[in-house]
Amino acid sequence: MKHFRDEDALVKKIARHFLPSRGGRLRLGIGDDAALWKPKPGFVGILTSDWFLEGSHFLREKHPPDSVGWKCLARASSDIAAMGGTPCCFLLNLALSDDATGKWLGGFLGGLRRAARSLDCVLAGGDTTRSKRILINVTVVGEIREGQELLRSGARPGDLLFGSGTLGEAEHGLQLLQKSRGRMSPKNLATRKHLYPEPRVELGRWLVEQKLGTAMMDISDGLSSDLPRMCAASGVGALIDPRKLPVLPGIPADSARQLALHGGDDYELLFSVASDHEERLPTMFRNLKLTRIGKITKGREVRMIGRDGRSKPLDAGGWDPFR
Amino acid sequence: MKHFRDEDALVKKIARHFLPSRGGRLRLGIGDDAALWKPKPGFVGILTSDWFLEGSHFLREKHPPDSVGWKCLARASSDIAAMGGTPCCFLLNLALSDDATGKWLGGFLGGLRRAARSLDCVLAGGDTTRSKRILINVTVVGEIREGQELLRSGARPGDLLFGSGTLGEAEHGLQLLQKSRGRMSPKNLATRKHLYPEPRVELGRWLVEQKLGTAMMDISDGLSSDLPRMCAASGVGALIDPRKLPVLPGIPADSARQLALHGGDDYELLFSVASDHEERLPTMFRNLKLTRIGKITKGREVRMIGRDGRSKPLDAGGWDPFR
Repeated sequence: MKHFRDEDALVKKIARHFLPSRGGRLRLGIGDDAALWKPKPGFVGILTSDWFLEGSHFLREKHPPDSVGWKCLARASSDIAAMGGTPCCFLLNLALSDDATGKWLGGFLGGLRRAARSLDCVLAGGDTTRSKRILINVTVVGEIREGQELLRSGARPGDLLFGSGTLGEAEHGLQLLQKSRGRMSPKNLATRKHLYPEPRVELGRWLVEQKLGTAMMDISDGLSSDLPRMCAASGVGALIDPRKLPVLPGIPADSARQLALHGGDDYELLFSVASDHEERLPTMFRNLKLTRIGKITKGREVRMIGRDGRSKPLDAGGWDPFR
Repeated sequence: MKHFRDEDALVKKIARHFLPSRGGRLRLGIGDDAALWKPKPGFVGILTSDWFLEGSHFLREKHPPDSVGWKCLARASSDIAAMGGTPCCFLLNLALSDDATGKWLGGFLGGLRRAARSLDCVLAGGDTTRSKRILINVTVVGEIREGQELLRSGARPGDLLFGSGTLGEAEHGLQLLQKSRGRMSPKNLATRKHLYPEPRVELGRWLVEQKLGTAMMDISDGLSSDLPRMCAASGVGALIDPRKLPVLPGIPADSARQLALHGGDDYELLFSVASDHEERLPTMFRNLKLTRIGKITKGREVRMIGRDGRSKPLDAGGWDPFR
């Protein structure tokens, strides 16, 4: 091991990157057997974990370490946003190869720290070990006022279905990255979204505070994979109007639509709103577009309006590690 | 993928193994973007994560899948016990190879379920993906009455140092396992302790309730690696009397002492007690021996009494993935 005498030295390096911890509800951070944390009075804790593995979720030769650091926390925090909650603290589980403990680790911790600051989410602990391949698992702990959480299971027939931002953008960014030689600088907006996604924490919080949503989740695997999950949880179906999808401009319409339907990694929010509340929903939330993309139906199928105006089943074509 | 059409089917198989979830403070388990959990009134949450990787922490040809399932939860829960807390729920992060989704997964989930029941710790969520090597990361969330937590940092010069159970037993079990051909049945007690460690939750809880400890941690990497961590956190030193160590009987005394000093994976509790409270501490807690192994000193060094009766430095010889 070139850079570290032992695990304790590595943990110290990580901890140094995140000091001073701004505390808040975190009573005790790195350095003991475990961390101590408590939600605010009247709030409940939200727990989520996410894998981020070299070779599966990122490529060392394509993704800057700074992006890996940012994204591993951002994507896990997106699950907190998807319930309308606020991220509070996280546990970083890092398995590093010998050649990743120097410059790579520095870049990684820099990106992670930027994400942690941007999300106001403090490092609480985790575990480190050694591995040939870089392995990351992040647990994020958030909080939400009791009873305010927006689940996947609340959609009712007749509700209108909305998506935030642009769909398929991150997938297009990934395609550009795959075609490029070596690591790419994130000048292109789509590449930027793939490398540095921004979980929609503020939108999610606003929707629950306004009591505007009936169901919500984040789109991480792609609309055609995630929407059926919301429908199954709610015991409903959905009908998507592909002409209404917030597609990426500047590329052929057919490709843009396919990307919007099946592209993963957008971390946009998908949510349903009772039809008589539609007018309370703005078309923009701060700089973020909110687009009505379809509606919730009685049948349990997820369908899409075809070119001929008739509906047809929408098959899942998004990211699935087991397919 | 032979056994699973997709990730959703795998998640369903896992969830089925753990139903019905007994709830308690877990408000929402598997099936949504994240889980909802809240500590009891007057309690604070405890957060910890642990890696458990094929090739590093277990070997597929040596460790029965049932033991892998048991141990990944037991060892993470030991960090909760080490603060005097009670495990409540856990997030299971599992990356599986194609050939591990059938029989191996069944055995794994069986062992995990037994550990979860034994610890009264319910499955709250997690993440699944695919990997050539089996990767496991477990986050355990526990709770403890506010202000009762026993940290590493509370040891004071003059305090007496205690260990629970037998030290070096699990390491001896590992050695037997390494010498054996193929997987071993856990008839031997040492092998059993290596395969199915039991976190000392009840002892930890009792010590904090009795306000008996001044500092506490679990011995996971070995006494010679873990004790210096407690001393560093407390700003103290320690003096170990190797003749007092609760060593494994039935093997040569020198080997037994080396195992007790440096062997990992015991998940016993190491704790300090103010000297005027010593008589309040029994020599047995239920079926578990409590042994006075040394004392806390002013100097910041961890030392051991040598054969000549003079003290000498105790060098860390326990488990460290980066050494």
